[in-house]
Amino acid sequence: MDLHEVDKFAKGIIIEAGKRIRDAFSHDIKVETKADANDLVTNIDRETEVFFIEQIKAFDSSHKILGEEGMGEGIDSLEGAVWLIDPIDGTMNFVKQHRHFMITIGFFVDGVGKLGYIYDVMREDMFFAMEGQGAWYNDTPLRRLQPLPLEEAVIGINASWVTPNKRVNHEKMTELVQKVRGTRSYGSAAMEIAFVVSGKLDAYISMRLSPWDIGGGTIIAREVGAIATNFKGQPCNLMSQDTFIIANPSIHQRILDHYIEEK
Amino acid sequence: MDLHEVDKFAKGIIIEAGKRIRDAFSHDIKVETKADANDLVTNIDRETEVFFIEQIKAFDSSHKILGEEGMGEGIDSLEGAVWLIDPIDGTMNFVKQHRHFMITIGFFVDGVGKLGYIYDVMREDMFFAMEGQGAWYNDTPLRRLQPLPLEEAVIGINASWVTPNKRVNHEKMTELVQKVRGTRSYGSAAMEIAFVVSGKLDAYISMRLSPWDIGGGTIIAREVGAIATNFKGQPCNLMSQDTFIIANPSIHQRILDHYIEEK
Repeated sequence: MDLHEVDKFAKGIIIEAGKRIRDAFSHDIKVETKADANDLVTNIDRETEVFFIEQIKAFDSSHKILGEEGMGEGIDSLEGAVWLIDPIDGTMNFVKQHRHFMITIGFFVDGVGKLGYIYDVMREDMFFAMEGQGAWYNDTPLRRLQPLPLEEAVIGINASWVTPNKRVNHEKMTELVQKVRGTRSYGSAAMEIAFVVSGKLDAYISMRLSPWDIGGGTIIAREVGAIATNFKGQPCNLMSQDTFIIANPSIHQRILDHYIEEK
Repeated sequence: MDLHEVDKFAKGIIIEAGKRIRDAFSHDIKVETKADANDLVTNIDRETEVFFIEQIKAFDSSHKILGEEGMGEGIDSLEGAVWLIDPIDGTMNFVKQHRHFMITIGFFVDGVGKLGYIYDVMREDMFFAMEGQGAWYNDTPLRRLQPLPLEEAVIGINASWVTPNKRVNHEKMTELVQKVRGTRSYGSAAMEIAFVVSGKLDAYISMRLSPWDIGGGTIIAREVGAIATNFKGQPCNLMSQDTFIIANPSIHQRILDHYIEEK
């Protein structure tokens, strides 16, 4: 398989999907809720996923696709060529802010991440990586992350994980928030992952993400030296939901050891 | 005083300052800490404030200026024509992210807000208002905010205020975080205020802001119907630090009554 050819194809469909999404702001966006009232989905999420599926199947019908909106076939393994796709990561931002939402795609072959993309649709900014070849922010190579003390770190964390919850000891999270230089929260996992791989944040933590949220990001992470694992320090499960931390390598283990205690 | 003339002047110097700040990324940015280690200032903050002071004094030497970096004269009242200026709101973002920092300016005459500006330097996006004339996002008029239930609100709040702290009852803040649809935190008060006046957020809360952080924003707020007060529900003190909440009018009082308990 010629990865450069796949990369060129992937960038082409991402940029085309981005154009379609931006155009959608001049039409009607229909918002529905999913499992819970705060989990939104729109016709544009679904149409974008269908667009990706049609394009990929036309490119190579043997490729398999796992997308957030479940518009493709179900898959039960990462065998062969597999695309993990989130057509709009940050749907609430898409609906309410008309910014701060991402297309993110990971391309895997037999379970190994080959190509990763996070595309900021409104800024038209592409973060991407190819296995072993490095990572880029548009035309600029991303540097390997430089070490820093935890006290100077700025981390992405949602305020709700600092409140009593059923997943982690919130008192430990409280200590983390009070230890670091600052916290941020943008409402898009892919945006926060893109910020970590480019040094704009030093860590991002989430209690529950899905394979399509992190597939592309973990491939970019590897090329800049960011460490992405679940809370047990293991590679994330790409076939189901899992806990997630991505961090600068100088602070990843320290955060896991001292500040994250799963219930 | 011809407010349209002042407005044209103000926009001109803001846009020029924005160009200079963007150019600074190709030179050296020198970072120092202020009172505490997490309060950063750079040579660019100071140079930008000096630029504003020089320009305003040349425009009308009787105008007074209160700026974050204290490069102007001290002032002890809002009598006459007064400019409140934050040359870079979100200095940590400026240094680390090269985005998400704002120039914000409020122009007051005898204590009454006349012109307010929040300028996203990297996006080249201007939020502004003129007393009684409305508010705009670039060339687009900002709509008056539409009511919504608290359960559907997305609010700007820093995770640290949900941890035990000496200013507010963090358990009440915890209830607020668990009540609303979502939270965000961007590391720039002016950015979060700009998001509230344009409906991208529904409230923003901070335990301690300075006059230059909020001067411009409160003037824009009034024109779209957003309510900006301190935690006692009073107009913010523009001569000293104060608590701060800006919110959609349908949820402002409810947040104050039920979720904010000062210590």
